[in-house]
Amino acid sequence: MPIRRPVIVVNFKTYQEASGLAAIELARICEEVSSESGASIVIAPPMPDLAIVSRTVNIPVFAQHLDPVPSGSTTGHVTIDNAKASGAKGTLVNHAERRLKLAEIHEVIDRCRTLGLDTIACTNNIPVSKACAAMDPNFVAIEPPELIGGEVSVTNANPKIVSDAVEAIRMISGSVGVLCGAGVKNGRDVAKAMELGTDGVLLASGVVKAKDRRAVLIDLISGLGR
Amino acid sequence: MPIRRPVIVVNFKTYQEASGLAAIELARICEEVSSESGASIVIAPPMPDLAIVSRTVNIPVFAQHLDPVPSGSTTGHVTIDNAKASGAKGTLVNHAERRLKLAEIHEVIDRCRTLGLDTIACTNNIPVSKACAAMDPNFVAIEPPELIGGEVSVTNANPKIVSDAVEAIRMISGSVGVLCGAGVKNGRDVAKAMELGTDGVLLASGVVKAKDRRAVLIDLISGLGR
Amino acid sequence: MPIRRPVIVVNFKTYQEASGLAAIELARICEEVSSESGASIVIAPPMPDLAIVSRTVNIPVFAQHLDPVPSGSTTGHVTIDNAKASGAKGTLVNHAERRLKLAEIHEVIDRCRTLGLDTIACTNNIPVSKACAAMDPNFVAIEPPELIGGEVSVTNANPKIVSDAVEAIRMISGSVGVLCGAGVKNGRDVAKAMELGTDGVLLASGVVKAKDRRAVLIDLISGLGR
Amino acid sequence: MPIRRPVIVVNFKTYQEASGLAAIELARICEEVSSESGASIVIAPPMPDLAIVSRTVNIPVFAQHLDPVPSGSTTGHVTIDNAKASGAKGTLVNHAERRLKLAEIHEVIDRCRTLGLDTIACTNNIPVSKACAAMDPNFVAIEPPELIGGEVSVTNANPKIVSDAVEAIRMISGSVGVLCGAGVKNGRDVAKAMELGTDGVLLASGVVKAKDRRAVLIDLISGLGR
Repeated sequence: MPIRRPVIVVNFKTYQEASGLAAIELARICEEVSSESGASIVIAPPMPDLAIVSRTVNIPVFAQHLDPVPSGSTTGHVTIDNAKASGAKGTLVNHAERRLKLAEIHEVIDRCRTLGLDTIACTNNIPVSKACAAMDPNFVAIEPPELIGGEVSVTNANPKIVSDAVEAIRMISGSVGVLCGAGVKNGRDVAKAMELGTDGVLLASGVVKAKDRRAVLIDLISGLGR
Repeated sequence: MPIRRPVIVVNFKTYQEASGLAAIELARICEEVSSESGASIVIAPPMPDLAIVSRTVNIPVFAQHLDPVPSGSTTGHVTIDNAKASGAKGTLVNHAERRLKLAEIHEVIDRCRTLGLDTIACTNNIPVSKACAAMDPNFVAIEPPELIGGEVSVTNANPKIVSDAVEAIRMISGSVGVLCGAGVKNGRDVAKAMELGTDGVLLASGVVKAKDRRAVLIDLISGLGR
Repeated sequence: MPIRRPVIVVNFKTYQEASGLAAIELARICEEVSSESGASIVIAPPMPDLAIVSRTVNIPVFAQHLDPVPSGSTTGHVTIDNAKASGAKGTLVNHAERRLKLAEIHEVIDRCRTLGLDTIACTNNIPVSKACAAMDPNFVAIEPPELIGGEVSVTNANPKIVSDAVEAIRMISGSVGVLCGAGVKNGRDVAKAMELGTDGVLLASGVVKAKDRRAVLIDLISGLGR
Repeated sequence: MPIRRPVIVVNFKTYQEASGLAAIELARICEEVSSESGASIVIAPPMPDLAIVSRTVNIPVFAQHLDPVPSGSTTGHVTIDNAKASGAKGTLVNHAERRLKLAEIHEVIDRCRTLGLDTIACTNNIPVSKACAAMDPNFVAIEPPELIGGEVSVTNANPKIVSDAVEAIRMISGSVGVLCGAGVKNGRDVAKAMELGTDGVLLASGVVKAKDRRAVLIDLISGLGR
């Protein structure tokens, strides 16, 4: 079942504040907020916690990365079948911190489609966004370097960066969702991202590092305008 | 606490027969046999199952691979801290199916030592075994290509392959344990490996693919000569 | 100056029959045939021979691969600036035997465009061909696995494989050239590839391993239909 | 024929000041200084210039990196046979800017030995130096991070860093040469490195970026104490 749009995707990265028991705790907060608000929230915990988190919460749990290799004699890799067996519903692909070969991106998207897993391909500029869109993932998450880190948010930066990417992606594929993957910190940023044509946001430290994660999530969701 | 020697290490690889719920099931069999016999058994399940298996059984659970990167902005990697937070007690390093850069091997061994995790460095020939021994992992697992797969076992192949490796490793480091990582299918092979100077064995399909995994484990343990 | 179309690109790969002095010899044959026939021939010799071949012949010499790293403290890499300084006029990108990360493909294409070097991006199927076309290289070379190696040629295999790829690429970019990168052994295959809408061919062993390389080249050129 | 000791190895890296025609020019200066002084000088130019430099000068020319793959269908790689065919006499292995997998380091050293090429394995600390020494390259070049870049030279830093590495390497192999790969800028540093038990130095920017390269080389050689 494809991920419900609009969506907020919370990447736990490998933060210690979001791994082990802390991963389960954060997953539960995300589940509660999703359940109370009806908003679509997807989480991507650290790899070792994938199965335990998937079996603990009822919102979709994604891998942060999968290897396009067959199950069996591939020690140390995370196969797509293994992720599915662990309960994952999808995966990030080609995250800025885990770039893949072009042919691997295609293999992961293709194999996930066959197994009924959703894919979110991460990209850093318009030509690369178009390239990913051409391989038909469920979502492309655009992370314009101009918006990554710091104080710049999509609301006060040149919003054309995002709307141009949305338009370029839609030219390649009408069905692929678009996520804003940088410059989002609060509900106002989410609202702006939605206004620019995206189907939601992908964020990490804004939630993981927050003092009051529940409050941040509730604020973010307010921007989805549902 | 270092792994008790002699030891039988069961690598689940990414076999579907040993992932998801099947990983938990196999882990439980290993735990029971270890508990009943008193033998030291270590298991290395697929990455997504690391936390759930660690929290389910009381025998040491190892990662199959860890990335020598810091926790935080390293999406899609498996950090050493994340593995520890998930309950892992150690890791395979440089498995034949997941070779690492030399500097990475050293970083993983070093960081694991600091965090109290055990390391088993896998090698394919005598010079590489010596190289790994020089970086002081807890174990070197030797996998002579002559013994990998097929019907050849360490009992009927030229046993000098193994004893030469043991001797070369001991010349570099007196404290590192040596595991026989190929050519072991039954208790007689384990006994032979022990006789050749090793501290145990590392195996995968011999257990994972067995019809009666419990029986195979009991037979293997019989060779430890305890 | 962009490569003249239609074109025959001869990849020397790392064959010993086409490296060192043999690289210079083969380069000279290619130059002679090009000069005598007026046909556009591009060659890609082994990396260590790039400068010496570039300074020996007057036809365009390409690298087989370039690393998207800056010149300076990047020992052991082949930078785009270094390739240009050696006299190269362009490069293959993402060859099946040297796959790149998606972001790297984009960086190489982009930097080459800035420096006036031509790029030929190699792909293995239609979605990947579209992805590459979206990043605007000068050429996409399609290598349908069905046509690689063996006796199957583009003339007797299902020609739809090639014409579908050409069409899909043209939908993304009208300016990118398309090369047929597999299943071409003689002039008839070249003629068929041209008929299917390509701008030429990319081949290797068919020339490098030929007993009479000059004769093979003359035959290939006959298929360009000029 | 093994490289004559003591030796000064000049790594051109990928500096534009040492690539293309500038690589040939610098190679000639190194050749002249070697010829006039009788000192052993080895140079490692950018990859595309390997053949042309090898055919231009009479001092040993090394690759900066080689791929442990067979010649033939390995487009975009630099095979050991290709390097030999281009006239190279050896290669750097595992330079800090081009780290290799442990098994690859062993394969490169092994294959080079078979083909009569010399190897200089680069390392960053004592355990890794010992690991490399265990695989028997011709030289290990130690680059203590404490000495890399900046103003710190081996003469004023804690010299124990170098002498400890030399001793550790000699414990593993008596025949391997040791080069000081950082903290060397002038003849006094070379003299100090020799005094600490090394067989010479490996350096890059100190020569490449010098205003008067000839003068720098002559000064460096003065420290060899021949």
